[in-house]
Amino acid sequence: MISVTILGAGNVASHLYKVFSKTEQVFVKQWYNRSIGSISTHKNEVEIIDDLLKIKEADVYILAVSDDAVKTLSASLPLENKLVVHTSGSVSLYDIDKKHRRGVFYPIQTFSKTAEIDFSNVPICIEALKSNDYQLLKKLAISIGSPTKKINSDQRRVLHLAAVFVNNFTNQLYRIGHEITESEGAEFDVLKPLIMETAKKVQDFSPYMAQTGPAKRNDKKTIRKHLKSLESEHHKDIYKLLTESIQRTHGRKKL
Amino acid sequence: MISVTILGAGNVASHLYKVFSKTEQVFVKQWYNRSIGSISTHKNEVEIIDDLLKIKEADVYILAVSDDAVKTLSASLPLENKLVVHTSGSVSLYDIDKKHRRGVFYPIQTFSKTAEIDFSNVPICIEALKSNDYQLLKKLAISIGSPTKKINSDQRRVLHLAAVFVNNFTNQLYRIGHEITESEGAEFDVLKPLIMETAKKVQDFSPYMAQTGPAKRNDKKTIRKHLKSLESEHHKDIYKLLTESIQRTHGRKKL
Ligand SMILES: NC(=O)c1ccc[n+]([C@@H]2O[C@H](COP(=O)([O-])OP(=O)(O)OC[C@H]3O[C@@H](n4cnc5c(N)ncnc54)[C@H](OP(=O)(O)O)[C@@H]3O)[C@@H](O)[C@H]2O)c1
Ligand SMILES: NC(=O)c1ccc[n+]([C@@H]2O[C@H](COP(=O)([O-])OP(=O)(O)OC[C@H]3O[C@@H](n4cnc5c(N)ncnc54)[C@H](OP(=O)(O)O)[C@@H]3O)[C@@H](O)[C@H]2O)c1
Repeated sequence: MISVTILGAGNVASHLYKVFSKTEQVFVKQWYNRSIGSISTHKNEVEIIDDLLKIKEADVYILAVSDDAVKTLSASLPLENKLVVHTSGSVSLYDIDKKHRRGVFYPIQTFSKTAEIDFSNVPICIEALKSNDYQLLKKLAISIGSPTKKINSDQRRVLHLAAVFVNNFTNQLYRIGHEITESEGAEFDVLKPLIMETAKKVQDFSPYMAQTGPAKRNDKKTIRKHLKSLESEHHKDIYKLLTESIQRTHGRKKL
Repeated sequence: MISVTILGAGNVASHLYKVFSKTEQVFVKQWYNRSIGSISTHKNEVEIIDDLLKIKEADVYILAVSDDAVKTLSASLPLENKLVVHTSGSVSLYDIDKKHRRGVFYPIQTFSKTAEIDFSNVPICIEALKSNDYQLLKKLAISIGSPTKKINSDQRRVLHLAAVFVNNFTNQLYRIGHEITESEGAEFDVLKPLIMETAKKVQDFSPYMAQTGPAKRNDKKTIRKHLKSLESEHHKDIYKLLTESIQRTHGRKKL
């Protein structure tokens, strides 16, 4: 049995609490947040605290708080030589105060409070300074059904950066698709199966192999037509830059 | 029973042939391609031709050929007053020769020969000049399990343009994610569940609601760090432009 104390009550903390609570090998010792309001509904299932002085012994302390809060919160923890980890893709392991045994438990997935999460689809990237700590974090991840990955800080930084491209930027392209269709009386809904299929394709084929369309074919007539129909200069800029990007990748001429 | 003749032997034609062959309400009368090699293996199941003079009566003729070939091929067809449709997102209905009853049967999906296609995930956008023809095309689409959408040429043009954003451009962002991770010894595979989840989220929530990340939060520190770690100037340009795009959408300041 691994005992865990969760600190924070946001997207990540809430999903971790939920999955740990229903995992036999894990016991949630305490759940801390600076403001207790949003989690007080769970007070019959777990000890809820908003006072760091009330913190008890646990095997792991997970700081699932805003990136900027990791440093000060870890320093304020009245503990010594305990395993304390954060869940961030971009915060250094060394931002955790050095009085602790330090580690990272970074779930590569997009969490929001409303959407359900299946932890078998959440690869967890683990870093730890001590090998025993690494083993414990790995066991914790496996107990909730997550695949694990041992990484170093450089790889984590790079994965987080790549995640911005495949998640935030991709979602913005969906948004632009939404804007373009709805502004012209077409329906964004018709594009949803295509969005799923585009994501599904790269589960089995490389994005290089999966590419199709006017930019890859260097179909100048269609590219010109598209640029003409785009009303927003900003959308035109994105169209040009990503068309150029595809043509670089596939060895076509520049626009 | 709807009799269909397919013209072309590429990605779209091959998947249409496959699904029509196994649909009870549809009979594939003939399958034409200018070069017969690639489809000759089907000669025991269907009449294969490479000579337009051998073309017979059918309820619908589907031109699933390259965009540029629609005009001349339709003019070369030795038929009159027959229902002839193309499958393109960007070609005008009026590119089909006016001796035919003209229509469009545009599947909004990404087809490649290797990947399996489930036609219930292929919305088919239908245009026709005559109401009877529209009904027949709709019946054909429904018979293979596809959702249908009545659209006009303007809406089709816009859907095709939006499809470039959510499919080709998105796939290029996956490609950049691939480049960034592999060049730094991290694994692209770890990002695959995130890619699926990003696509899944917008099936239920709007892309506006689904957005997260440093650009939306206007987290300048992380944005600066990311720009610094990107080695390629080209990737930096894309990062900047899409970050700015998210900030426009979510009412943040420009970079
Ligand atoms: N969301 C994701 O998709 C995702 C994915 C992977 C990793 N992460 C990482 O996981 C961590 C948490 O992200 P999240 O999305 O769960 O954040 P969130 O929903 O914004 O929640 C942030 C939490 O941090 C607390 N907090 C903020 N400032 C604090 C401070 N100075 N002292 C103490 N607590 C403070 C907040 O408390 P209040 O409730 O009182 O405001 C809240 O409970 C971040 O490091 C993030 O980078 C997030
Ligand atoms: N692929 C997709 O994801 C997709 C999605 C929706 C709509 N579409 C549309 O569907 C149509 C077909 O696309 P595709 O991807 O199936 O194309 P494709 O795989 O490139 O196949 C093109 C076909 O057109 C034939 N062709 C080319 N030029 C010709 C000419 N001058 N005369 C007669 N036949 C000619 C080719 O014959 P050979 O075999 O002899 O070269 C080949 O059979 C296009 O209008 C495209 O815009 C495609």
